[in-house]
Formats: sequence, C-alpha cells, structure tokens
Amino acid sequence: MMEEVLRQVQEGKLSVSEAKEKLATYENLGFAKVDHHRKNRQGFPEVIYGEGKTKEQIFSIIKAIRSNNNDVLVTRISKEKADYILREHPEFIYHEIAQILFWKENTTSSKEPYEGYIAIVCAGTSDLRVAEEAAVTAEALGSEVRRFYDVGVAGIHRLFDNIEQIQQATVSVVVAGMEGALPSVVGGLVSHPVIAVPTSVGYGANFNGLSALLTMLNSCASGISVVNIDNGFGAAYNAVLIDNIAKKGAQKG
Amino acid sequence: MMEEVLRQVQEGKLSVSEAKEKLATYENLGFAKVDHHRKNRQGFPEVIYGEGKTKEQIFSIIKAIRSNNNDVLVTRISKEKADYILREHPEFIYHEIAQILFWKENTTSSKEPYEGYIAIVCAGTSDLRVAEEAAVTAEALGSEVRRFYDVGVAGIHRLFDNIEQIQQATVSVVVAGMEGALPSVVGGLVSHPVIAVPTSVGYGANFNGLSALLTMLNSCASGISVVNIDNGFGAAYNAVLIDNIAKKGAQKG
Amino acid sequence: MMEEVLRQVQEGKLSVSEAKEKLATYENLGFAKVDHHRKNRQGFPEVIYGEGKTKEQIFSIIKAIRSNNNDVLVTRISKEKADYILREHPEFIYHEIAQILFWKENTTSSKEPYEGYIAIVCAGTSDLRVAEEAAVTAEALGSEVRRFYDVGVAGIHRLFDNIEQIQQATVSVVVAGMEGALPSVVGGLVSHPVIAVPTSVGYGANFNGLSALLTMLNSCASGISVVNIDNGFGAAYNAVLIDNIAKKGAQKG
Amino acid sequence: MMEEVLRQVQEGKLSVSEAKEKLATYENLGFAKVDHHRKNRQGFPEVIYGEGKTKEQIFSIIKAIRSNNNDVLVTRISKEKADYILREHPEFIYHEIAQILFWKENTTSSKEPYEGYIAIVCAGTSDLRVAEEAAVTAEALGSEVRRFYDVGVAGIHRLFDNIEQIQQATVSVVVAGMEGALPSVVGGLVSHPVIAVPTSVGYGANFNGLSALLTMLNSCASGISVVNIDNGFGAAYNAVLIDNIAKKGAQKG
Amino acid sequence: MMEEVLRQVQEGKLSVSEAKEKLATYENLGFAKVDHHRKNRQGFPEVIYGEGKTKEQIFSIIKAIRSNNNDVLVTRISKEKADYILREHPEFIYHEIAQILFWKENTTSSKEPYEGYIAIVCAGTSDLRVAEEAAVTAEALGSEVRRFYDVGVAGIHRLFDNIEQIQQATVSVVVAGMEGALPSVVGGLVSHPVIAVPTSVGYGANFNGLSALLTMLNSCASGISVVNIDNGFGAAYNAVLIDNIAKKGAQKG
Amino acid sequence: MMEEVLRQVQEGKLSVSEAKEKLATYENLGFAKVDHHRKNRQGFPEVIYGEGKTKEQIFSIIKAIRSNNNDVLVTRISKEKADYILREHPEFIYHEIAQILFWKENTTSSKEPYEGYIAIVCAGTSDLRVAEEAAVTAEALGSEVRRFYDVGVAGIHRLFDNIEQIQQATVSVVVAGMEGALPSVVGGLVSHPVIAVPTSVGYGANFNGLSALLTMLNSCASGISVVNIDNGFGAAYNAVLIDNIAKKGAQKG
Amino acid sequence: MMEEVLRQVQEGKLSVSEAKEKLATYENLGFAKVDHHRKNRQGFPEVIYGEGKTKEQIFSIIKAIRSNNNDVLVTRISKEKADYILREHPEFIYHEIAQILFWKENTTSSKEPYEGYIAIVCAGTSDLRVAEEAAVTAEALGSEVRRFYDVGVAGIHRLFDNIEQIQQATVSVVVAGMEGALPSVVGGLVSHPVIAVPTSVGYGANFNGLSALLTMLNSCASGISVVNIDNGFGAAYNAVLIDNIAKKGAQKG
Amino acid sequence: MMEEVLRQVQEGKLSVSEAKEKLATYENLGFAKVDHHRKNRQGFPEVIYGEGKTKEQIFSIIKAIRSNNNDVLVTRISKEKADYILREHPEFIYHEIAQILFWKENTTSSKEPYEGYIAIVCAGTSDLRVAEEAAVTAEALGSEVRRFYDVGVAGIHRLFDNIEQIQQATVSVVVAGMEGALPSVVGGLVSHPVIAVPTSVGYGANFNGLSALLTMLNSCASGISVVNIDNGFGAAYNAVLIDNIAKKGAQKG
Repeated sequence: MMEEVLRQVQEGKLSVSEAKEKLATYENLGFAKVDHHRKNRQGFPEVIYGEGKTKEQIFSIIKAIRSNNNDVLVTRISKEKADYILREHPEFIYHEIAQILFWKENTTSSKEPYEGYIAIVCAGTSDLRVAEEAAVTAEALGSEVRRFYDVGVAGIHRLFDNIEQIQQATVSVVVAGMEGALPSVVGGLVSHPVIAVPTSVGYGANFNGLSALLTMLNSCASGISVVNIDNGFGAAYNAVLIDNIAKKGAQKG
Repeated sequence: MMEEVLRQVQEGKLSVSEAKEKLATYENLGFAKVDHHRKNRQGFPEVIYGEGKTKEQIFSIIKAIRSNNNDVLVTRISKEKADYILREHPEFIYHEIAQILFWKENTTSSKEPYEGYIAIVCAGTSDLRVAEEAAVTAEALGSEVRRFYDVGVAGIHRLFDNIEQIQQATVSVVVAGMEGALPSVVGGLVSHPVIAVPTSVGYGANFNGLSALLTMLNSCASGISVVNIDNGFGAAYNAVLIDNIAKKGAQKG
Repeated sequence: MMEEVLRQVQEGKLSVSEAKEKLATYENLGFAKVDHHRKNRQGFPEVIYGEGKTKEQIFSIIKAIRSNNNDVLVTRISKEKADYILREHPEFIYHEIAQILFWKENTTSSKEPYEGYIAIVCAGTSDLRVAEEAAVTAEALGSEVRRFYDVGVAGIHRLFDNIEQIQQATVSVVVAGMEGALPSVVGGLVSHPVIAVPTSVGYGANFNGLSALLTMLNSCASGISVVNIDNGFGAAYNAVLIDNIAKKGAQKG
Repeated sequence: MMEEVLRQVQEGKLSVSEAKEKLATYENLGFAKVDHHRKNRQGFPEVIYGEGKTKEQIFSIIKAIRSNNNDVLVTRISKEKADYILREHPEFIYHEIAQILFWKENTTSSKEPYEGYIAIVCAGTSDLRVAEEAAVTAEALGSEVRRFYDVGVAGIHRLFDNIEQIQQATVSVVVAGMEGALPSVVGGLVSHPVIAVPTSVGYGANFNGLSALLTMLNSCASGISVVNIDNGFGAAYNAVLIDNIAKKGAQKG
Repeated sequence: MMEEVLRQVQEGKLSVSEAKEKLATYENLGFAKVDHHRKNRQGFPEVIYGEGKTKEQIFSIIKAIRSNNNDVLVTRISKEKADYILREHPEFIYHEIAQILFWKENTTSSKEPYEGYIAIVCAGTSDLRVAEEAAVTAEALGSEVRRFYDVGVAGIHRLFDNIEQIQQATVSVVVAGMEGALPSVVGGLVSHPVIAVPTSVGYGANFNGLSALLTMLNSCASGISVVNIDNGFGAAYNAVLIDNIAKKGAQKG
Repeated sequence: MMEEVLRQVQEGKLSVSEAKEKLATYENLGFAKVDHHRKNRQGFPEVIYGEGKTKEQIFSIIKAIRSNNNDVLVTRISKEKADYILREHPEFIYHEIAQILFWKENTTSSKEPYEGYIAIVCAGTSDLRVAEEAAVTAEALGSEVRRFYDVGVAGIHRLFDNIEQIQQATVSVVVAGMEGALPSVVGGLVSHPVIAVPTSVGYGANFNGLSALLTMLNSCASGISVVNIDNGFGAAYNAVLIDNIAKKGAQKG
Repeated sequence: MMEEVLRQVQEGKLSVSEAKEKLATYENLGFAKVDHHRKNRQGFPEVIYGEGKTKEQIFSIIKAIRSNNNDVLVTRISKEKADYILREHPEFIYHEIAQILFWKENTTSSKEPYEGYIAIVCAGTSDLRVAEEAAVTAEALGSEVRRFYDVGVAGIHRLFDNIEQIQQATVSVVVAGMEGALPSVVGGLVSHPVIAVPTSVGYGANFNGLSALLTMLNSCASGISVVNIDNGFGAAYNAVLIDNIAKKGAQKG
Repeated sequence: MMEEVLRQVQEGKLSVSEAKEKLATYENLGFAKVDHHRKNRQGFPEVIYGEGKTKEQIFSIIKAIRSNNNDVLVTRISKEKADYILREHPEFIYHEIAQILFWKENTTSSKEPYEGYIAIVCAGTSDLRVAEEAAVTAEALGSEVRRFYDVGVAGIHRLFDNIEQIQQATVSVVVAGMEGALPSVVGGLVSHPVIAVPTSVGYGANFNGLSALLTMLNSCASGISVVNIDNGFGAAYNAVLIDNIAKKGAQKG
C-alpha cells in the first residue's frame, strides 16, 4: 500500500495531507481510538471488549462505529450494560449466556451455495458460557454454527454418537475445562483444523484453567491450535477466518 | 462410518470379522502400532516423531509405512539417524536445519490453478530451526511456502518492507522466541489466520519459552492461535489443513 | 500390638529388653537401616530405590535382606550396577527397560483359583520405560499382568479394539505423557479402579510431566487416582495391593 | 460389546436403528445429557456436581435419573439448593457439612457376611468438610465407614492410639491440608491401599493446597495414590471401588 | 557526610547530641517514621502509599510532612479517603482515575529554557488507570508530560502516527497489559530510555500481569527497563529522575 | 518414656490400663481432640488457630483447656469472636491488631535475674499486623519483647539508629513484605539467630508474599531461618524457645 | 520522517524507488539482516548477540557492519570464537570475563567537559561476569565507568564505605544474585536512577535468578527499574542512554 | 558503637582518620573483600562458599584470613580443590561427603561443664550429603553433634527408637527430601527449636526440593523454621548460634 500511496503523491493524484489521512484510519474519542479501516484490513468491524468499560464508554464507541455504518460486536457485556445500550438501539441482539451484544447489516448474501459450518464442541455443562461466546460470535460474524454440547471424554460414547456431523464441519472449536482432554480426542477423529479453548472450570489443581491449557498445548493429536483460557471469542474469530476461506472457494465454484 | 458398517453387516455385504477389520486399521510392530488408515481419516500418513526412538525403530516404522505405499515424514531426526535411513532409502530428502526426513510420491497435481501459499514469518536468526521445521513440514505435506526471516519487532521496518507479501498469504505461521511479540504485530496487519509458535530461544526470565507462549496466548490481536513451544511441525500441520481448504475451493473454480 | 506387649510384660512373659526388641525391627547398616518386619506389616520386603546408591551399598542392603530369606526388589538400577549384583547372585532377574532387578522365593502358590490380572495401559512408545517399570514390579510382587501399549487418544480406535480385555481387569495402571488424556478416557470406560501415572515425556509446555500430572488430577472421570510423575513402581505397588484384595476373596471361595 | 452388537445385527436379532440405540445411552436435556447406562458400565448412577448448576437444572437432572429408578448423588450442593430439591423429594437425605444430597433404593442386601470398612482419616478440624464429603459419599455408595478425625502428625500419639483400627480397614482415605504429611505416616503403618486427599486448608506458602498435593505425590511410603485438592468425593469413589472388590470376594465365600 | 560530621565534632563545631541528630532525620509518629531528609537525599518528599492506610493515618503523615513545608504526594488513595483530606486541605489536587492526591509549593521555576518532556505511551483503554498514575505522578514531581493512549500493537498504525512526537521525548514510560508487546515496538523505534510498566489487565493465561511482565523483561529491543506490575508511580519516578538530568543540562546551558 | 512405663508395668507399679492412659493424653471433644500433655511435652498449652472455627467451637476448646488449669492462646481470632469469649471470660486479654486472645496464670516468676529480650523488627507500617501477632504471642508465652517498627531498607538510616538495641537482643524476629530484604541486612549486623517472616504485603509480582519468602530463603547472610508467609505466631514461638534456653542459663547462674 | 519523505516525493526531489530505499535500511545476509541505520535511530551500531551463532556467522555480520565504518560490539562471545575474529581483526579488544569483543572508532571527543560516570555496583564475587558485561559494554559505548564490587548487604559496612562515590554517579547499575537485596539498599541511599540486574547466582529456592528478580521488582525504594536475569548488557545500554543525556547537557554548558 | 566513636573523637582520643578506620574492617583482595571484624561481630570467621570460585581464589582468601589468625571454614569445596589447599595447609581437615574444608585453632576450652548437643536428624540415605554438611559445619564451629540418620516417616518406628535422645538435644536440624514430612513429626515430639532443611532429593513432582520446602513451611507443628533447599551449612550455623546461647548459660552456672 505504501508504494501505491507514494506513487499517487508523485503523480500528483494525492496531496501530502491526503496521503497522511490514508494512515489516519481511526477516530479519536479521547479515551479510545476507533479503527474504521479495520473492516477493510481484516474484514470485520472493531470488536468491543466490554469488561472494564463503563456503559457510557461502550455507548460512545458504538456511536462512532455506527456513524460509519459498520457492524457492531460487543463481548463480555453484562445484562445491565446491554440493557442500557438496547434502550437506544432496540434493533441490537443480546445473548445473555454468551454475554454478547451485536448488530449486523442485513447483507442478504442471497444465492450463497456454501453449506459448510463450524462445529462448536463442548465437554460439560459448566463450559456453556464459553461455548456460547464462541457460537454467538461465529454467528454474528456470518458463519453457520452447529452445537455439540456435553460430550466430554468421561462418557465418550456421547461424542461418538455425534462424530460424523463433527467430521463434516469445516473447522471445529472444542471447549473444555478440568483436564481438557476433549480436543485431543476430537483432533484424532477429524481431518480439519481444531481450535481448542481451555476454560477455567474446575477446582483444586486446575489452577484457573492452567491444567486444561497445558493439556491442549501438549496434545499429541495433530491439527490442534489453542487460544487463551475462556477465550471463546478468539476461537470463533479464528474459525470464521478459516470458514471464510472455504466460503470464498465455494462461491467461486 | 459406523452406521454404514452396521448396514453392510446387516445386508450381508460384510462379515463380522471384515467389519472388525475396518476398525483394526493399524499394523502392530510390537513397540508401536502403525496407523495405515490415518491418510484416509486425516489426509496425511502417520508422522514419526524421531526424538527418543532408535534409528532401527524408525527404520521399522518406515518399512511398515512404505509397504502400504504411504508417504513418510520423520521430524526431530538427527543427521546421524537420517544417514542410517538414507543408506537404504537414498531417494528420501533430509533437511538438516529443520531436522526433517521425508519422502513423497510424485503426485504431479498437474493443472493446479491454486496460487496460495503459507507465509512462514520468523523473528530472529536463532528461531531458524523451528521456522525451518515448519517450512519443510508444510512443503512435505504439499503446500507452497514463502519464508520471511529475521523480521522481529525490535527493527519493525524490516517487517513492514515485507508486509504486503505476508498479507497475501492464505495463512501465516509466525515463529518468535524471547518476548514473542511478533505474532501480535503481524496479527494486527493481516486478515487471514495466524498460527503462532513460541520458541525456547532466550535466557533469564524467558523460562524456556514460557514467556513467548504467554505473550502469544494473551495477544490482543484477533485471529491468532498458538501451538506448543518449539512445535514448528504442529503449526505447519495446522497451516496446511487451512491451505488445503483454500486449495479445494480454487480447484473447484 | 502395644497393649499386647504391655500385657505380656506385666504377666512376666516378656522382659523389658525383649519388649524393646519388639520395636527394634530393623538392622542398622550404618548408612541405612534395613526393615525386616516390613514384610509382616505391609506384605512385601523393603524395596531398594537404586538411583543415587552405589553398587556396593545396594549389595550390602541385599545381603542383609537375603540373610532373613526375604525377597528382593531393586528399582531404578542401571545395567552396570545390576551386572555387579548378578555376578554374585546369578539367580536374580534383571529387566533392562524397566531397570528392575529382583529375586522371589519360589512360593508355588499351587491351586490358586484366582484369574484376575492388572491391565498396564500405555499411551505411546516413549512411555515404555515407565510402563515396564510398572509391569515388572507387579509381576515381581506376584500379580498377573497384561500389557496394552501404544493405545493413546490420538488414535482412539486402537484403544477401543482392546477395551473389553481392559474392562475385565481387576485394576488398571494407565501410563501417559504429553497431554496425559488417556486415563480420563479409560476411566470413563471401565468400572474398576484406575491408577494414573504421568510421565515426563514431551517437550515445550509439558514442563517435565507437570502437564500430564495436572490433566490426571483434574480428570472428570471417577475412579482415577494418581501417583508421582514417572512413578511406575508406585502405581504397580498400589495395583498389587488391590489385586491382592481380589485374590484373597477368590481363594476363600 | 461391539462384536456382540455386530453379531446380533448380522444374525438379524438387532435392526440397525436398535444397534444405534445401544450406543445412545443417555437422555438429552438440552443443557445436559443424562447417562442412564453408567450404572451398568460403572456400577453407580451419574453423580451430579452441584457447583455452578442452578437448583432448577439440578432438579431436572434428578427427575431424569429418578424416572429410570436410578439412585441419586449430588455433591457440592448448598443448603439452599438442597432445600429446594427436598421440598419435592422429602425422602432424600442431605448432609450439610459434606454438602451432599442423595437417595438410595432400599436394596436390603440382607445376609451380607462382609465386615470390611473404609477408614476415613483426617488431620485437623479444618479438613472436616472434605473428610465428610468422602465419608458420606462412601456411605451413599454402599460402603461401611469409620471416621478417625483430628489425628494429624503434630500430635502423632493421637494417631497411634487409633492405628490398629485403621490397619484393619480394607482401604484408607487420608485427608490433610497444610503440609499434608499424614498419608506418608499412615502409609508406613498399614498394608492396604491409601488414597490421599490434599485440602486447600492453610495459608501463606500453602498456595491453596499445592503444598499438600506435592507432599503426597512425593511420599516415600508405598501404597499411596492421590486425588485432586479437596476432592473428597473422588477419593471415596476410588475407595468404594476397592471395597467392592473385597465385598465380592467375601460374599462368594 | 559522615566524614564531615566527624570533623565538625572534632573541631567542636558540633556536640555529640547534635551529631546524632544529624542522623535522626525522621519524625516518629508511632505507627510510621516520616523521613524529612529524603528531599535532600533524593530530591523529593516521602511519597505516601495510600493503600492499606486509614484516612486518619494518611492525615497524620501529611500533617508531619507539611509542618516541614515539604511537598506531598499520596498514591493509591480512594476518592473517599481523598475527600477526607481535601476537607482540611482544599488546596490539594486530587486525580480520581490516577488515584493520586498531591500538593506542590508554587516553585515558579521562571525562565526555564528546558523543553523536554516525558512520553506516557499506553496500549489500551483498560490500562488507563496505570498510565494516569504515571502521568500525574510525573507532573506532580515537576516534569512536562505528553500522553499517547490507545496505541497498542494490534493496530500498529495508530502508534506510527504518533511516533515522531514520542521519539522527541527525553524518556518514555510505556504501559501495556495482556501480551505487553508495546515496549518492544517502541524500544525499537526510539533512541532514549524506555521504562516499561506491565499491567494486570487481561484474563486467562495472563496471570495478573505475569504475561506482560515476562514479555517486557525478555524484550529483544535494547534500552528497556521494567518496573513492577501496575507500578505507574515507580515508572514515573524513574522517568522524572532521568528528565531532571536533562533539565539540569539544559538549565546550565 | 516408653522404657520407663514398661518398667513400671513390669514392677507392678502401673496397671495396663494406667499405662495406656499415659498415652491417652487428650480430651475428645468430637470435632477436636484437646491435647493436655502438650504443656509437658513442649512447655506451652495447645494453641488454638481461630480462623475457620466458629466462636462456639473456640469456646468449647477453651473450656476443656481451662478445666485443666492450662493457659490459653487463641490466634487469628476476629474481634467479634473474641467479644463472645470475653463475655464469659472477662479476665482474658484481647489484642485487636494482633488478632490474639489469651490468658496466662499469674506465675509471678519473682526474682528472675534474666534481662534478655526478643527484638521484633518490622519493615513497613503495612507489616504491623504480622509483627504484632509475633510480639503479642511472645509476650503471652512469657518473653520480654522490644519493638522496632518501620525501619525498612529503603531508609536504612532508620534501622542504623536502632541497631545497637537490636544487637543486644537474644534473638530477632524480622518481619518484611514487598522485597523482603530487611532480614538480610539485620542478619549481617547481629550475632544472634534471626527468624525471618515474609508477609503477603505488596502488589504485582509480589505474588502474595512469594517474593519476600524467596528473598529470605536465599539470604546470603548467615544465621537466618524462615517461617511461612504471615506466620508471626510461628516466628514468635521459635523465638521464645530460644529465649527460654537463654533464660534457663541465666536462672542457673 | 514519513511526512518529510512524502513531501520530497511530491516535490520531485525523491523518486519512488529512492523513497522506498529510505526505509530499506538493512543489508540482507541471508541468515540475518544487518541494520545500518540503527546508529542513526538509536545512536549505536547493531549489537551482535554471540550465543547460538557460529564464529563464521559472527564474522560475516562484522564484515557487513565494518564495511559501513560502523562500530562493532559482540556480547556473549566465547574466547574460542573471539580468537577466530581477532586473527582477522587484531585491533579488536576482547574481555574474557565479560565475554565481550568490540571495536570503536577513535572518536577523540576532545575537550569534553563532562565528568559524570556510571557506577557498576556488585554484591558478590560470583556476580562478577554479569557486572563486567555491564561495565565493558558501557565503556565500549563510550561512558566512563567506576566499579564497586563485593559490597553485598550481608556486610553492609563495605557498601557504606563506598557510598559517597556511588552517590555522585549519574546512574547506577546494581548487580546481585541470591536474595538480590542490594538495589533496594542502594536505591534508598542515592538520588539518581538505579538499574537493577538480577543474576542466576545461587542455589535451592533461587530458581535460576527468579528470587533476585522478584526482589528487585518489589523493591520499596523508588527510582529502581529492572532488566532481565543476567542481562548486564541491557542494563549498561540503559545506563549509557541516561549518561548521554547528562553528557549532552554538560557539553552544551 | 557510633556514639562511642563520636565521643572519642570529641574528646580527642581518636583522630578523624582513626575513626574512619574503625569502619574499614576488611581487606581488599581485588576480586573479594575479606571481612576481618566479622569474628567480633558474629563470633565466627568469614565462611568461604567454594562453589564457583577457583582453587587459587580460595587459596588467596584463606591466606588473608590466616594472616589474621582467624579460623577457616570452606563449604561446597570439591576434593580436587581441597587437595590443592591441603598441599600447603596439611593441618587442615577435609570431609569429602560434606564437601567441607576447615581449620580451627586449638582453643582447648578446658573445664567446660556444658553437655548439650545438636541433633542432626535425617530422613533417608540420599539426604546424607546435606546432613553431613550440617554436622561437620556444626562441629567446625565448636558444637557437639549427634547423628540420627535414615529415620524417615515411612518407617516411623525407627524414629521412635531414637526419639528420647533427640528430645534431650538443645536444638535439632532435621534434613529431608521427597515429601519432607520428617520435621513435622519431630517438631511434634520435641520441645526445643527445630531447623528444617529441605533437600533436592526426589523426582517427578518434587521439583528440585520445592515439594519438601513447601511441606516444611506449612508444617502445623510449632517450633519449626526453615532454611534454603540443600542448605545444610545455614541450618548448622543457626543451630550453633542457639547452642552457644545454652553454652553461655551453662558456663555461667
């Protein structure tokens, strides 16, 4: 891009100040800089991490994003903060378990021949919050999602009953706390990328998810990569990037 | 698959012992079980982790794999062990820096319209071994690779000079030791999946790669997932799975 | 016992010095105290941990044990030290992989109706040394053993092919390194006690077995307890205690 | 089992859908899958881990379990949640210290000649909650229990006064926080399996039970295996499995 | 100083008790000793760390400091405690985000030719509290400050737009949580000292700032030193010491 | 003692039940066993650790102790619990900062020529609670105490002003949080034993006292031993044992 | 700089390729990229970290640097590698204890009125290597250095005898292993910046320098910042940056 | 002391330079400063830590110490280094297991009525080196020592047989590796101070002595303090300080 800008300046197509503006791609709210070009660079709007921000701060950032007609995705936002936003933006959608608030332009991508989906696989009921954060994020970012919950290794026949559907997914997000063994088992049974999410569910020598994190990093099954503890959003974001690669191929066909 | 097998048994197309054989997909060498069906399940032959195995053990496993005409990929194999194998299999290829030995059927995939590639990005010269393990693995598994080495964040203009080529990759593998900050910077500049590999390069409070590992897991850039410390093979394996999704789409077109 | 001793002293059946001797149950070799009563208290002779002891020290301890006609079991003993002992005691048996040297009185327990066995289950070929330490220990202590090796979760169908034999064991010892997920899977499939042994096999964030240890402690399958990293001996010792309970019941019948 | 099912399908005794059902052994409640076959596989009903579940969720799971006439065991359930269940199921029994709620069919196992018991040994009064979780669990699962509380190593004569009764148990569960030395001492004095439970009781460099956990894993006494910090339930479950082996032998006699 | 005092005693210019008083440089409040000579020794008054002190204790210490006409700087002081002080000292200034209360004599350093400043650079909005603690501390200690907030590496163009102003600073304080990569990037772009402050912002494997701390200690960029997690005050204090060196040179000129 | 008891039994001076009673030295309260002989064995009554016990439990234990006319020492007891005890035992003394409640027979040790004392040295005002726990414990156990508070290494002249009095103590207890450097400095200046107490005071990379603990264990000054984090009681107990050795010598003279 | 380049392109003073070259500031050696502009950006040549590089690689990098007449500084270079370089570059200077090889143009900075210096303070003789790495680095980068070795806190009078000279330095580098308390003490006695270097010297709970690192990060003295364990080079680099600020002021005067 | 010096200066009894000399209490060897006054301050000569020092350095330090007729104690000195010293100083005594070399003036402390001793208690034969370091150190520093070796908790009757002699010691040093439970048991049986030494003996989750260290710090027995892992010297030094207090009392009597 830099070369292009330089050329346009040289050819007089771009003034110096215009050239500089090309790099000034964000809006300065004082307490935050909103990045309007990210959609171009990365294909998605700036995601707002709601934890540790006041509802008023979240509101201002949303306003800046919406004024550019960009989509909005707020993660880790409590019901109380979400209600505050929803009063002004009743068209937004809030998922309480996932703690996600979002708004998506109705980009009716009609005639999409792609039938791929992301499998969200989850070991136990206590991992639900993280699994839902992943599932709702992926949906908000435009992917099809199928949920396979409560299929942990302690009762492995429950996993086996669903394995064929999981195998047909484009990519899997596998969420597990405690010993975190599920991604290893899934990874040995599928031939697509597996994104593993350790959760902080457990007690004792679980050390807030460290146990599951180490298990997943040390998995002897190939094709597994790992995101941070409880980071359902990050896993989904990765999965959607991969799903989009498949989608692009399908749409070309 | 299970349903299919059951049906064939019921319809008399498969005897019980044939059905059982469908699941007995490995050859028992005594000290190891070689998994011939993995290629079907996961698209690649069983990879041999060379460390901690004697050259004779590696030789036997290779023999079992080759007798099924499967491809061979041995990682973490020293020059001395590789030489032992090469005496019998002079057609095999050995990469000393990457410590990889492999053999690939000449599957001349002619008329392949796909032009995507995997970017292998590497922070410093001391991370070379791991970066090459990733690069050679990806090549052995059939992907196109481009190398961007010694572009760490301490001299970030070196990264910026190469950023456009990195941005056009299908997926990036970013290898970094010491503080491990490179994947965060790359992740903020590209819109494809980034697989981060922490290396054990460093000293003092680096704790054999723990520092880089934590940095990568905590990255505030989206689209980054992480594999184990020094696990160049694992990162490449993931990247190839993703690259294959793109390839499939391209070939359809 | 104390009450009994007190009574005998009171009744004049035991002198004070005899009473004291009842508690002096070991032989003092200077650098070590050999505990001759342990066989009574625990059912086995004192086990010698060979690591960190010279071959001469081991020899002296063996001599003291043999002079009481007790059985001998030396763990973590190198071939070189074992050879030194074997020159004097050619009747002893040495297992090089297991690094165990032992001698057992030929207590032909004829007419034993008991058919139970201990299943030694092992994830990968690199865990062999620890698995064999467990297997040979259990055999040396008088139990029947069946080995199920290289059945790790990355290729879980290999485990499933053997699961019924494992299920029929009295107790299982499950050995696994890297992510250590195997005991969770086995634990969910059997209804007998599972003793899990983490091994230090792995690299990167494996941290010398910590990863596998934490996985096993956090297992969400019930019926699993854990011994120290690489402690094949300890696991076998536990398993034999349990196997003996079953044996006692069977012999009574 | 798989072979059996395959044969029955082949012999026409089982339709494909019936065969599939054999593996669909759980009831899907949406947020959880209740595993009705576990009793067969493991000898006990599914245990409900109450922490992190709402009282309504617990209620639904209980309903599903009871509809199959299975026994019920809920651990880590607060008095408030238990009261909610007890209103509907006044026949259930709640132990407040142990935080356990359970219901057991009156399987009057009359004429049982077995007199074995599990010794629950506990170092200090602050470890009571975990010790009681173990004791009540073992009782709920059908074993006889004897309690030996407040017999920690700092006043070791208190332990010695009870040691003979502990020695006569079939298996011991030894609960200890702080330095966690009690299992080592008990393990040196008994000849049956010892299951050690570290507790998070302590302060400073205790690190929430890590200190006691490491002590127990490193015990130089043989015959000790360890469960997770504060996991009284897990220890009891193991102990009952062992006790049942003894019971089976006794009943045969 | 000691030699000087000794000489004066010898020359009779100082009595023994006067000599002793020279070393008794603090006022004993019972619960604390206020150090009046620190200003001489270190150039600043004693800073009061407000956390864990009652408002009355803080008030007493301030009184002792003010009675010597020294400046006052209280860090980590809540609004509620500050209000208590402000009622008596309305001339004091309180910064709520920074949680700092201070009072500075109006030392109109007229005709100061020095134009240097400290750059306070901050990765994300959640690091604001720590960044403001640094900024306000530096201002309270007499330095000029420029703030560059929300310029983290995930959107590195935001940093680049401000880099020239940062480069012209005398010294930078760079505040970052999560992966803490910002100081490495800034350190590679400037030629003045960089003081890095890890923050405890983040979640999962962030471990309360450990991740950012390790990243910064392992930075491969030169010229970076690190202070404790969240220690904005300490970083500013260091920066002001460096800024004062520059100031002294400039004023000489 | 055992030999003595055996002899008396033999000589008929002691019946078997009397002999047994000699070892049954505690009173069983059900939830706790009170150890009445500890005073004989260790010279002090059983100390009650108040944390995690209800006020009623503490009351019962006190009652059992007082019924034997033993002294009482309760540590970590909140004001609210102490008030409950004081209503019944108004003669007891409660120290709120130290969180200690105690009662000591008025053993007017008249004509005691011993003038030794324990120095309680403390780095900062925030370490006060632990220092006072040490000081009050030592006083309750009968030792003379001198307090040297707020003499941390950051203003080392404050320590030097008091060093001679510290040097003349029989033993020092040195309490420090944050970097925990004070014991090293004191240890290099005195010639008596120093007992170091790390406190959990600090933030960031202090890790709840781990930093200070490691500092103290690694001290390069000789004569320093360490107790657990925040364990003022334990340090004082040690110091009193040492002080009593000095006292015994002095009283003999 | 970017704005300047853009303007020159627009004004036709710079072609696009010239503009690009402005950013291509390094020479590509294949295995490494040598950064010739760093001297401009940071005031020093690229420093070569010798560990893990072959002597031939080091030689090539030196050649590239020298061809631009830049100064050379190689750290962590063994005598054997240095000898290899010295054969070709006999004018280079090698310090064996510091493991540093360097070459500096004779930039006779005549008439330099500046008399400041860096104090290198060191706790014990075993920290010598790191202290010398700091001292020689600072000298190679052009600063005056004074060494104060073996002045650890266990014999604090040794420090006090030298304190005035340390106080008059512009900046101090304080090196300490084991408990790492020295920087806290120095920091409380001087009014200039202190850069603390933990060393890995020690044993037991020292954990390869972690103990000293934590101590320094938690120092309650102000004005201390920390570099990585054993990183004498990094500390010196920081100190020289600060010394240069003072120098600039002095030269102006 | 300071006041005294000041007074003498004032009274003209001391010149300024003489006064200064009072503080210059060490000899500067260049690489080390030998502290001749330590004997006065702490009652012992400077101890030389042999590890990491060359034999020539050790020789020089010894020479400086001997020239003041001080005693010599070198710890952690290999046989090879000791032999080098012994050639010049054949009167020195070397203990190979303890790795200690020392020389003590024949201060025939005739007519010493004191009969106290230090008990060195040791869990297993592998802890011998550390136990001997403690024992020989204590003897070299002038205390009477009694050894109680191989009395670990796994065979606790071996401890009980020796307990009365241990109880009569003035102070105990208790050395233990693996789980480190021995000090807790001893601490509960004696009424004198116990100094606990964790050793790095063990494997797996022992983490080089961390396990034993944590056990000892968390001991629920009172009267226990801890020194660094493997620090037999430090424990003995502490014990001798305490023993000397008892000795002083006894000699007075």
